[in-house]
Amino acid sequence: MKNTIGNLFRVTLFGESHGEAIGVVLDGVPAGIEIDKELFDHQMFLRKPKGTISTQRREKDEVNFVSGLFEDKTTGAPCCMLIYNGDQHSQDYLKIKDVARPSHADYAANVKYGGFQDYRGGGHFSGRLTAPLVAAGAIAIQILKEKGITIGTHVKQLHTIVDDSFSTEIEECKKQIEEINQKEFSIINEDKKEDMIQRIDEARMSLDAVGGVLETCVIGMPAGIGEPAFDSIESRLSHAIFSIGAVKGIEFGLGFGFKDKMSSEVNDEFEVIDGNIVTKTNNNGGINGGISNGMPILFKTVVKPTSSIAKHQKSVNFNTKENVDLEIKGRHDPAIIHRARVVVDSMAAITLVDCLMERYGMVWFQGEKK
Amino acid sequence: MKNTIGNLFRVTLFGESHGEAIGVVLDGVPAGIEIDKELFDHQMFLRKPKGTISTQRREKDEVNFVSGLFEDKTTGAPCCMLIYNGDQHSQDYLKIKDVARPSHADYAANVKYGGFQDYRGGGHFSGRLTAPLVAAGAIAIQILKEKGITIGTHVKQLHTIVDDSFSTEIEECKKQIEEINQKEFSIINEDKKEDMIQRIDEARMSLDAVGGVLETCVIGMPAGIGEPAFDSIESRLSHAIFSIGAVKGIEFGLGFGFKDKMSSEVNDEFEVIDGNIVTKTNNNGGINGGISNGMPILFKTVVKPTSSIAKHQKSVNFNTKENVDLEIKGRHDPAIIHRARVVVDSMAAITLVDCLMERYGMVWFQGEKK
Amino acid sequence: MKNTIGNLFRVTLFGESHGEAIGVVLDGVPAGIEIDKELFDHQMFLRKPKGTISTQRREKDEVNFVSGLFEDKTTGAPCCMLIYNGDQHSQDYLKIKDVARPSHADYAANVKYGGFQDYRGGGHFSGRLTAPLVAAGAIAIQILKEKGITIGTHVKQLHTIVDDSFSTEIEECKKQIEEINQKEFSIINEDKKEDMIQRIDEARMSLDAVGGVLETCVIGMPAGIGEPAFDSIESRLSHAIFSIGAVKGIEFGLGFGFKDKMSSEVNDEFEVIDGNIVTKTNNNGGINGGISNGMPILFKTVVKPTSSIAKHQKSVNFNTKENVDLEIKGRHDPAIIHRARVVVDSMAAITLVDCLMERYGMVWFQGEKK
Amino acid sequence: MKNTIGNLFRVTLFGESHGEAIGVVLDGVPAGIEIDKELFDHQMFLRKPKGTISTQRREKDEVNFVSGLFEDKTTGAPCCMLIYNGDQHSQDYLKIKDVARPSHADYAANVKYGGFQDYRGGGHFSGRLTAPLVAAGAIAIQILKEKGITIGTHVKQLHTIVDDSFSTEIEECKKQIEEINQKEFSIINEDKKEDMIQRIDEARMSLDAVGGVLETCVIGMPAGIGEPAFDSIESRLSHAIFSIGAVKGIEFGLGFGFKDKMSSEVNDEFEVIDGNIVTKTNNNGGINGGISNGMPILFKTVVKPTSSIAKHQKSVNFNTKENVDLEIKGRHDPAIIHRARVVVDSMAAITLVDCLMERYGMVWFQGEKK
Repeated sequence: MKNTIGNLFRVTLFGESHGEAIGVVLDGVPAGIEIDKELFDHQMFLRKPKGTISTQRREKDEVNFVSGLFEDKTTGAPCCMLIYNGDQHSQDYLKIKDVARPSHADYAANVKYGGFQDYRGGGHFSGRLTAPLVAAGAIAIQILKEKGITIGTHVKQLHTIVDDSFSTEIEECKKQIEEINQKEFSIINEDKKEDMIQRIDEARMSLDAVGGVLETCVIGMPAGIGEPAFDSIESRLSHAIFSIGAVKGIEFGLGFGFKDKMSSEVNDEFEVIDGNIVTKTNNNGGINGGISNGMPILFKTVVKPTSSIAKHQKSVNFNTKENVDLEIKGRHDPAIIHRARVVVDSMAAITLVDCLMERYGMVWFQGEKK
Repeated sequence: MKNTIGNLFRVTLFGESHGEAIGVVLDGVPAGIEIDKELFDHQMFLRKPKGTISTQRREKDEVNFVSGLFEDKTTGAPCCMLIYNGDQHSQDYLKIKDVARPSHADYAANVKYGGFQDYRGGGHFSGRLTAPLVAAGAIAIQILKEKGITIGTHVKQLHTIVDDSFSTEIEECKKQIEEINQKEFSIINEDKKEDMIQRIDEARMSLDAVGGVLETCVIGMPAGIGEPAFDSIESRLSHAIFSIGAVKGIEFGLGFGFKDKMSSEVNDEFEVIDGNIVTKTNNNGGINGGISNGMPILFKTVVKPTSSIAKHQKSVNFNTKENVDLEIKGRHDPAIIHRARVVVDSMAAITLVDCLMERYGMVWFQGEKK
Repeated sequence: MKNTIGNLFRVTLFGESHGEAIGVVLDGVPAGIEIDKELFDHQMFLRKPKGTISTQRREKDEVNFVSGLFEDKTTGAPCCMLIYNGDQHSQDYLKIKDVARPSHADYAANVKYGGFQDYRGGGHFSGRLTAPLVAAGAIAIQILKEKGITIGTHVKQLHTIVDDSFSTEIEECKKQIEEINQKEFSIINEDKKEDMIQRIDEARMSLDAVGGVLETCVIGMPAGIGEPAFDSIESRLSHAIFSIGAVKGIEFGLGFGFKDKMSSEVNDEFEVIDGNIVTKTNNNGGINGGISNGMPILFKTVVKPTSSIAKHQKSVNFNTKENVDLEIKGRHDPAIIHRARVVVDSMAAITLVDCLMERYGMVWFQGEKK
Repeated sequence: MKNTIGNLFRVTLFGESHGEAIGVVLDGVPAGIEIDKELFDHQMFLRKPKGTISTQRREKDEVNFVSGLFEDKTTGAPCCMLIYNGDQHSQDYLKIKDVARPSHADYAANVKYGGFQDYRGGGHFSGRLTAPLVAAGAIAIQILKEKGITIGTHVKQLHTIVDDSFSTEIEECKKQIEEINQKEFSIINEDKKEDMIQRIDEARMSLDAVGGVLETCVIGMPAGIGEPAFDSIESRLSHAIFSIGAVKGIEFGLGFGFKDKMSSEVNDEFEVIDGNIVTKTNNNGGINGGISNGMPILFKTVVKPTSSIAKHQKSVNFNTKENVDLEIKGRHDPAIIHRARVVVDSMAAITLVDCLMERYGMVWFQGEKK
């Protein structure tokens, strides 16, 4: 599928960091949806680099709908959203164009594309490409919202600093999601915020970078969504989430915590409460046999520390096949995890809308003409 | 894609645990491949329940090629492989047919299929469906092997007992893979084997079950395979691996270990050795920007303890919406991780063959007529 | 997609003419459907060779559901249907195994599969592979029927003999469809039947074969189904129909008849009748801009005369690259068009169910538990 | 697949006639291709309305590559090509916004999109959307050309005026293709050109429109391309070609001409000439069993007369459900067939590149760094 993901609700991504524009075509958008401008702009805002804890490249990231909108509502035709690139420093990359930045795609891309890839700023591999994904995701999040489904992600861990977890109490958890979704720096326990920000600042000052763990919760997914075998919700969500550059691991519910437990400790027993079937615990993260069981969908993703750092590193020139010393000029993110949270929400929302459409059909989502 | 996965090399899965047969259609098999019968049977053998550490349901699991083979070679047409079911105890399931076994798909499936699903033995959700996947995987593994690509998985951790890791020395690692691939119980450090088996036996005797972590290594993947964005190798492998029932997490390279590291500690620096570009460390598990960089592909998956246990559990009857007490008769696996290892190899091999085909085309794989 | 077609409702085909079995996996079947055995058997019967106007190869074509059915209802899991091969004369093909039968796939397949294809009886290219398609189609036709959608195909032309067309009067047309669907030899004007059968018999006696044109009508498709651009109903139907071996052309509505008309003669004007929007004529075959407009969907397909004939022909041995004289022993169909009609219905029904599912979702089709 | 077509080489289409821009994302473009600017511009020129025989809407149709190109070569990342809309007369459409233009998508789209579609100028259904397809097709045609594959389409019939057919002599045919590809009005027999143009002019003057038949030939396709069953070359080509608005029929080789022939008259006998296996006739249009046999691929498409005409027509207001009289102001095409020819070439080329990639892989197509 290359740069296209999704079945009935599908995203096609394009653009390079230092090209003219980056963007996305979102197909399968139900007709008659009035884009919630406030929500949309807020989502874009959450991804934007801000303050000293992010790169100093500052882009307007204005999203230009070139299709799919008419009289402020979606038409049912594909939405192409363009974001023009502005604040590039392309010359920064010229002298390292044949050097493989450690942990970056440079070398792999050079082999794959025979040296023709746009090397400037990571080209098509740049984290900047997450901006159009957030734009597409904003629409998906709005669609979920209108169906009573809420999604949110917080920084569960940054370097060694650990945030609280989502409440196991659904109403409380929902409140937490609503709160973190308003926060620039998504954290449940505000007392940990300053520590995290300071840790990022320290990384920046030592020309280094940090990563961490994101925790995501989706409340309101009806039971019965997903497929056995190859289209389990876990399969589809992980497929989508791993398309985010720095993600190197994902776990659902208890995840790797299952490794040293007995079944009797971690099986999620069912019970009937107020006539509803629920589970007493949610170690499976709301998914049984690949299918939603009505409980909150819970997953964690690990975001590796940003590969681009200014610190001196060893590397190679893949053209001359010589070892080289590398100091990458340019504007680096000492952390991206606090910005990645909204990208994770976006990719998850896009995936879940797609899953819901398969079950309920396009008509369920369509607006009504007054 | 539901029960079909893959693009040029694709698997379609069917069957229920207590139905007549289970099976798989493997499409895109290059013509002219002589199935390596020994390898094929060995792979099937590795998945089979054996001894006291697995379920007492004993099936012959004979694979019947109903198509795609002619004069012992693949024809290029789809291979349908059938495995007949034999040793069912369907009546075991009749009395719990409306009861949601904890952490099983029963309830979610009941909502999804409106009560029409085949509830016997987990139906289409049964772990038994991994048998045809192993059959398909055996062919994929053979195809990789002929291209010099080796894959292997060992039980990195079982409950609290931890095995050694793969050697970072490639030749040594390759030897380890060859060795574990011969072992019924895949472990690198043989000294840990008895402990693990004993732990499983203890679980069995307490009517409980255990899980753990599998570690997989692929050696010989050329650089330049995979896609940026939505078809990263991580995206595709995780999609495939999460289709295995008990898997609840996956991490590539250092994975969740990245969370508390600085970039300078974990970036994989490149160096030239004997004219080849390699990395000094392999924290990214052989994948940069979604594309292989020529280093071993490394990932770990967590396998939760088997949900089916004989121990008393609380649950609900989803028909009457009453709380019930549950003791599941039947033949349970006190652990499946030692059998899941070959399923992980299979799904990974299927995925990687597909990725390779996109780059090199079908002709690269085709046999030659003598 | 190779041997798989469809999105939410998808068919995977396998098998070779002289292999053990042929079959199909039908995925995305709504749960809770009780297979209408009478309809199912009738459809299979319609495809079967009968009398002197078809091949003398007589197969039982018994369909064996190896999965997806439980207590006589669909489970929602994939249905694998197997048809065992019986009455093969494989030795007929041995001596012509390197000879390219004119207009057959033999040579093209030999290049594609490097000589490893199963050459016996056309292998995977055999018209026999339409039997499982008819089985899958029978389920699709039943699904359509339950939604009030009727489909039927008649032999519009056989060699030079021309049948009447479907009535433009919808109720009358519906009655015609119901009638032809009961007929072994599908024809509207019964007066033409004997001529057609005699023409086929003449072809048989001269060791030759004939083709013709099929006309298909679908009544009851709601307006608004299909997609602009690449998933027009025409695109999807033609994709499916051209997978039938002998089909070499398709036209919708007036089709090639449009070529010498002025717009004002053939534009379908709309009018309101009894509060419903209909068109006065239906030259567009019920499809505007790729989307159904509520009028009957009409298309014609040309079925070339069967390529397998007993008459002497010139050809080549593609192994030795020598010209050869060819007389094909074996049992030939002097015509297949009267059997192809049910294959066209099947492929069309499969396609339309898929289109409907995208719009209305799986839940719309699911049975209800009593 | 909605607005995306193709597997390894894939096109995603977006835009509305009177929106800001229309465009296409072309993914799977091999890296290192230097766009042949002359060929590219020529293709765009061929589609452009010119003179009195086309609409008076005159657009620059300048193609803006916003991604996928770097230093004048393709990067391997998706190419997004934008074409801004300029010369709209949107007000022409306001008063007929609830009127179903006969044979147009207006009514079907209104049902499908619940009234939210952009009605101006046909919106996403507009023939204008073929401009980005021609841009994508130009790249496909260049890729084919570099592999020695030539494609061309001429107006075989316009209303009642008939052009010659392609020569059955391959070298001569190739010359014809090269010639027609240079012609604004693609015709083999120049003596028929004036008649055809005059016929279009007559249609224009009577406020009417005409259609006709296009004939396409592809020379140089290697044998062995395509798939049996659902991905026959006929299936894939027809799928692509029917995405062009006005196409209502397609036939391969002799096509509907097969209907009244005996097999012995039309079977394509093979022969060996200069060591090459060829067929004496090419009634199957270069395709046997869905797979190319090395002969020219030949197909014809019927293009219905343009639905938009200025003449008085009857229709309905689908909002009020009243019958109305309709005279469509605006700028109409009295014929589009002479412009559609390059769209057919484009869609065919896109499809064939995709088929070739599956067989030979991406590496076969990639440029080499000097």
